Amino acid sequence: MSEVRFGILGCANIARKVARAIALAPNATLYAIASRSIQKAEKFAAENSLPASVRVYGSYDEVVEDSGVDAVYLPLPTSLHVRWAVTAASKKKHVLVEKPAALDVAELDRILEACESNGVQFMDGAMWLHHPRTAHMEHLLSDSNSNGIGTVHFIHSTSTMPTTQEFLENNIRVKPELDALGALGDLAWYCIGASLWAKGYKLPTTVTALPDTTRNAGGVTLSISASLQWDQPNKTVANIHCSFLSHTSMDLAICGSNGSINLKDFIIPYKETSAKFDFTFGAKFVDLHIGWNVRPEEVHVDNKLPQEALMVQEFARLVASIKDCGSQPSRNWPEISRKTQLVVDAVKKSLDLGCKPVVL
Amino acid sequence: MSEVRFGILGCANIARKVARAIALAPNATLYAIASRSIQKAEKFAAENSLPASVRVYGSYDEVVEDSGVDAVYLPLPTSLHVRWAVTAASKKKHVLVEKPAALDVAELDRILEACESNGVQFMDGAMWLHHPRTAHMEHLLSDSNSNGIGTVHFIHSTSTMPTTQEFLENNIRVKPELDALGALGDLAWYCIGASLWAKGYKLPTTVTALPDTTRNAGGVTLSISASLQWDQPNKTVANIHCSFLSHTSMDLAICGSNGSINLKDFIIPYKETSAKFDFTFGAKFVDLHIGWNVRPEEVHVDNKLPQEALMVQEFARLVASIKDCGSQPSRNWPEISRKTQLVVDAVKKSLDLGCKPVVL
Repeated sequence: MSEVRFGILGCANIARKVARAIALAPNATLYAIASRSIQKAEKFAAENSLPASVRVYGSYDEVVEDSGVDAVYLPLPTSLHVRWAVTAASKKKHVLVEKPAALDVAELDRILEACESNGVQFMDGAMWLHHPRTAHMEHLLSDSNSNGIGTVHFIHSTSTMPTTQEFLENNIRVKPELDALGALGDLAWYCIGASLWAKGYKLPTTVTALPDTTRNAGGVTLSISASLQWDQPNKTVANIHCSFLSHTSMDLAICGSNGSINLKDFIIPYKETSAKFDFTFGAKFVDLHIGWNVRPEEVHVDNKLPQEALMVQEFARLVASIKDCGSQPSRNWPEISRKTQLVVDAVKKSLDLGCKPVVL
Repeated sequence: MSEVRFGILGCANIARKVARAIALAPNATLYAIASRSIQKAEKFAAENSLPASVRVYGSYDEVVEDSGVDAVYLPLPTSLHVRWAVTAASKKKHVLVEKPAALDVAELDRILEACESNGVQFMDGAMWLHHPRTAHMEHLLSDSNSNGIGTVHFIHSTSTMPTTQEFLENNIRVKPELDALGALGDLAWYCIGASLWAKGYKLPTTVTALPDTTRNAGGVTLSISASLQWDQPNKTVANIHCSFLSHTSMDLAICGSNGSINLKDFIIPYKETSAKFDFTFGAKFVDLHIGWNVRPEEVHVDNKLPQEALMVQEFARLVASIKDCGSQPSRNWPEISRKTQLVVDAVKKSLDLGCKPVVL
């Protein structure tokens, strides 16, 4: 199969990471980059030592008009996703969009409809889903695995990072006109995604924002907690906490009927080449309850490519399959994004209702 | 100082652990045990190889009437705490009561008033507070420690254990007439206590039960989640999950402005002689966000005595100080119990109100 040629719209910090990931992925190549000014685009190309073959544009339009581009990656502010994703799809470009996918599910549906009607692949930029550690944990979440954690009862996840005063005043991610969701979009996308993933993408019954939310003067969420509840097939609760105001944490804990999984770096692993999680199975107290019969097992998972390159590789594999073999776009990734967005919307609605429960 | 002589009222399983702890504590001695029948008490003495010097009684009254007894330990069903704690206090016996301290704060206040008016020490049986690991973590929670986790923003804790069908049908802890609080008393006592401890025993502003509660036919809580919120001096959320229906977990995670603490065995350490927790400080992502600048530090804490013996030792120290030196009973332990009970009551109230927030 041919290498998939990527165009990047925008020179945000995250674009540096994904440009490198495209270079690392064996089935992808960076073909073009664009910023709103040619100077910024050239600076980005120079600073990241991009090969001379990469086309450097001073407008996003030039990328989506370039017939050499197969797929676009959009590291733009969320408010611009719908415009540029729909434009790119209409030009038959496959769309990899940074998370959060959109400001709300209505916008996301416009994107997904544009992708579907143009026969192009859609995927959001949640990289951790592509790490082999995630697949390894998923195996332990399977109901049919008698050596796994069994029926999931409880999920806990956090996505917090400390920011500077400068960030809190000026960063795109806290500007109401650019990223109105703030921490709910940028950070909760991961925790909501992880909760859905742990529940096999079954939507929760009820979503409730918790009253510790902090917003900035523009109304953008800087810190938020929420609780997701499932009634069927069994009662499950997933509590999430996301904040730009706290120390770095990326905790994920899942407790089921037979075991539990714990890790502290689920979104960005501590290091690139391997990752681990703790797996506890069949734990009981010893006689007199003075200790445990087992310790958590440290499960180590090596990865040849970093998770962002694995994401690009998976996306490019789907694109090449459509391009070269006439396959249909995968519905899996759009569905994951849409369910995540639905829960983001529900948390926002609950927040707007003064933390009342929202039934999905 | 003289050794403090303990009498144990009741031969529950936990009494075996505490009888051993009394034997291990250098300033305590087991003086008497009682069950409701002499046969059960004798069986308990034989099975636990108690010394022949231990007096074995067939009624609780005989223990509280015995002038040789300085202090009683009450491993009785919660519904019996108020009766026997008040009786013991009126006989000038110091009172160590298994958790939950009482069915509600009104009952606990009767116990605390009896203890205060009789000049005897009160303490509840939350053993983990006496582990040196807890003191070590407390040092990292101090606002004045610039190498600590800083201002606490988020607390997550669980107390879950799998039980058998037999337990769910017949155990004291799920019988409405004996332990009407169920998991909310037996398990949430720890998570609520840990949340208060992490917040320096400042009471939360609001307490909300989450809607995933499971009750048995008698209305006793088998599984419960709740969210505690503090508004002052900074917004903090503590989410707890407690269940008799899930795999064993005793997670505690505390995230602050500068660092975080994580452990998975906060209530009963994996082993008796040492314990550890993970401490992460000043974590940032490396360039390109492809990893972290630091890893969690594993902080190991040795303990010469198991935590339950340290609890007995601390209780006996206070008792001896009252007995031998005329000191006043410590107000610290009763206050911790009372605040914990207040929050238990608030969770119960929220639950009874259909998960409405309860303002404290």
